[in-house]
Amino acid sequence: MTLTLYVDRLSQYCREVIIFCKLNGIDFEEVYIELSKGHQLSPEFREINPIQQVPAIMDGKFKLSESHAILRYLACAFPRIADHWYPADLYKRAKVESVLDWQRTTFPRGPGSFVFYSVLAPIVGLPLNTKAAARTEKNFIASLAMIDDQPSIADLSLACEIMQLEVLDEKDRERILGPFKRVLKWLDDTKNVMAPHFKEVHSILYKFKEKLQKQRITQPGRKPVLHSKM
Amino acid sequence: MTLTLYVDRLSQYCREVIIFCKLNGIDFEEVYIELSKGHQLSPEFREINPIQQVPAIMDGKFKLSESHAILRYLACAFPRIADHWYPADLYKRAKVESVLDWQRTTFPRGPGSFVFYSVLAPIVGLPLNTKAAARTEKNFIASLAMIDDQPSIADLSLACEIMQLEVLDEKDRERILGPFKRVLKWLDDTKNVMAPHFKEVHSILYKFKEKLQKQRITQPGRKPVLHSKM
Repeated sequence: MTLTLYVDRLSQYCREVIIFCKLNGIDFEEVYIELSKGHQLSPEFREINPIQQVPAIMDGKFKLSESHAILRYLACAFPRIADHWYPADLYKRAKVESVLDWQRTTFPRGPGSFVFYSVLAPIVGLPLNTKAAARTEKNFIASLAMIDDQPSIADLSLACEIMQLEVLDEKDRERILGPFKRVLKWLDDTKNVMAPHFKEVHSILYKFKEKLQKQRITQPGRKPVLHSKM
Repeated sequence: MTLTLYVDRLSQYCREVIIFCKLNGIDFEEVYIELSKGHQLSPEFREINPIQQVPAIMDGKFKLSESHAILRYLACAFPRIADHWYPADLYKRAKVESVLDWQRTTFPRGPGSFVFYSVLAPIVGLPLNTKAAARTEKNFIASLAMIDDQPSIADLSLACEIMQLEVLDEKDRERILGPFKRVLKWLDDTKNVMAPHFKEVHSILYKFKEKLQKQRITQPGRKPVLHSKM
């Protein structure tokens, strides 16, 4: 069977799937669905994923979408995937599931809204709200504290989400992540454990950042475009 | 071991866990964490769930939060749970996982934003946007089409989410859900399969609706309070 990944590396959700495959020696064909050109809306891609989002996969004839569902599937479908990624043990797995779900239910209102309230709010014409931003910090720490030494698919996914902050101006990124010493330590550890693929797959993000920085210098009033929630 | 559910029945995420236990004959003790009184923020509850959200469970000494993670855990931890809830088959399970995740990534921007754009936007001072609302419809149908005859934990969870619309004015609910004939058929089927517990656990919602309707009559300018995303 051939595994095909339909992805755009500018999306954190796509990057987590690519990195997982690379780290675990899973062969795949990468099909570039260029989101900024609307390739996800083509009739051909609709046959692959009627929801018209990336990432999507085809494993032989089996089609699947949603990055977390894909990670769970890959961890179970391919042989010799180390247990720490998606533990077979009922209780350990439940904790991984809880962190995966927290990322979807609470992260957007927690650390995600921290970024929103501390940096992005003015872009959509809302005032900065540092009080709301500060409120989210405890939540962030409480959730990270659940994560173990050996990375799980929840660590991989969360690290890819946090890496999205790299596109921000250095000063803003430092202001947001700087106070989270434990998060930064955890992010560094995660990067090291997942070397060299974690860095390689994120290289597109640094190119995008350079482009944004040039825009900031040449067109200081222009709003940055953040490719999250694609 | 004793299973304890820490819940507020006004939350759809809590109701899905309670209904699952009742349908599958899982004994539990229900501890009421009254969200409107901030009981989730108490130091005692923080010991149970540092994220300070409901639902949370304790199964013996094992603590878990996030409703989807709890449903997965219960489906695996308790004996004789029918396979359709959370299929053991790799491919069937992956499809259930995909729908569960879709509910968190896309539903809030799809059908969730449909409700938002068609009804709730004025409450937060934004204009109605029927174009944006209409855009979400295809997405909704495409996702529902994935759901099979026998209910899975994804059906249960999605049905509980959609039931939250019951608190809206009858006219608004009809306007939102009326055109979705397939969704309504699916919702009816789901209710029937899950009788009598589905209805019984939702009774609190109808009481809340009555209260809201009285408010609408006696204080027509007052904004309704929707207990979602708790």
